Amino acid sequence: MSKRLFFITGNANKLKEAKEILVGYDVDSKKIDLPELQGEPEYIASEKAKLAAEMLKEPVFVEDVSLCFNALNGLPGPYIKDFLAKLGREGLVKLLSGYEDKSAYAVCMVGYCEPGKDSVVLKGRVDGKIVPIKGESDFGWDPIFLPDGFEKTFAEMSAEQKNEISHRKKALLKFKEFLEGC
Amino acid sequence: MSKRLFFITGNANKLKEAKEILVGYDVDSKKIDLPELQGEPEYIASEKAKLAAEMLKEPVFVEDVSLCFNALNGLPGPYIKDFLAKLGREGLVKLLSGYEDKSAYAVCMVGYCEPGKDSVVLKGRVDGKIVPIKGESDFGWDPIFLPDGFEKTFAEMSAEQKNEISHRKKALLKFKEFLEGC
Repeated sequence: MSKRLFFITGNANKLKEAKEILVGYDVDSKKIDLPELQGEPEYIASEKAKLAAEMLKEPVFVEDVSLCFNALNGLPGPYIKDFLAKLGREGLVKLLSGYEDKSAYAVCMVGYCEPGKDSVVLKGRVDGKIVPIKGESDFGWDPIFLPDGFEKTFAEMSAEQKNEISHRKKALLKFKEFLEGC
Repeated sequence: MSKRLFFITGNANKLKEAKEILVGYDVDSKKIDLPELQGEPEYIASEKAKLAAEMLKEPVFVEDVSLCFNALNGLPGPYIKDFLAKLGREGLVKLLSGYEDKSAYAVCMVGYCEPGKDSVVLKGRVDGKIVPIKGESDFGWDPIFLPDGFEKTFAEMSAEQKNEISHRKKALLKFKEFLEGC
């Protein structure tokens, strides 16, 4: 019987992506309201996974995305959701107007925990830069993130093309490797 | 017998200040590690007070300070500690270099909770602006905050003068009024 894992998400697309990558595992989702924590991205994913495992008493994984500006020493980082909500895409571009360095990286942390055990964090990172809005997207900051080596922002890529190179894909692939080594 | 209240802090100066303001109450401190939460300042103070009251089974209060830049729609706000740690004082000033509007406000939220009851949040606010470093201080952003109506930054004031007009003082005075109305 394949190992059962619960992905803590209410997002059907994220569940679909995780299922496609974690072949050989019985992945299901649960929507739990976990507190949004402050701190380093690794810490946040680790704590959320621990909390969810305690609540569900099942092996669980969570994912948490940060968008880090090098000029701001990694900020907004895990606070990107709040920054996007308060400043908008244009405001995020403007935030870097006083800085030469427009480089940034997107990080996805997958936190995995089995009840009563320590949590493990797997990291996927995509380097790129912050650019004026190009393309349309339902995903928050995709139109202002231009990944290195490409001429299209995440928003200008097809969903398939983006998912192929994304920080989330990289983190999920590392998670799969980790599970296979267990 | 006077009502007993626990202030969740490890800071002896903050306890002293609270005791001086909350005359007629038996104020003591407890150091508990509460999670640093993301969200609106009111929400954070409210949740922390609730958590602490559940843990201690006693009436408790917490305080949480935000530094809000109007040009950034209230950010860094509750993330100011992390921003100060990562960018420093000069970095915080630079963060506003692309904006005309240097106005800002300091907010102290006092969250109060009795076990099994809803928490209450009392707010103290000081308006001012962000200026290049003036004065020396052990307190993080005091040298870059110039309160409206004064020609000295918080760092250039004596401790007594600052405490007289501070966001924390205002919030504690409102808290005292609230307690007296209970």
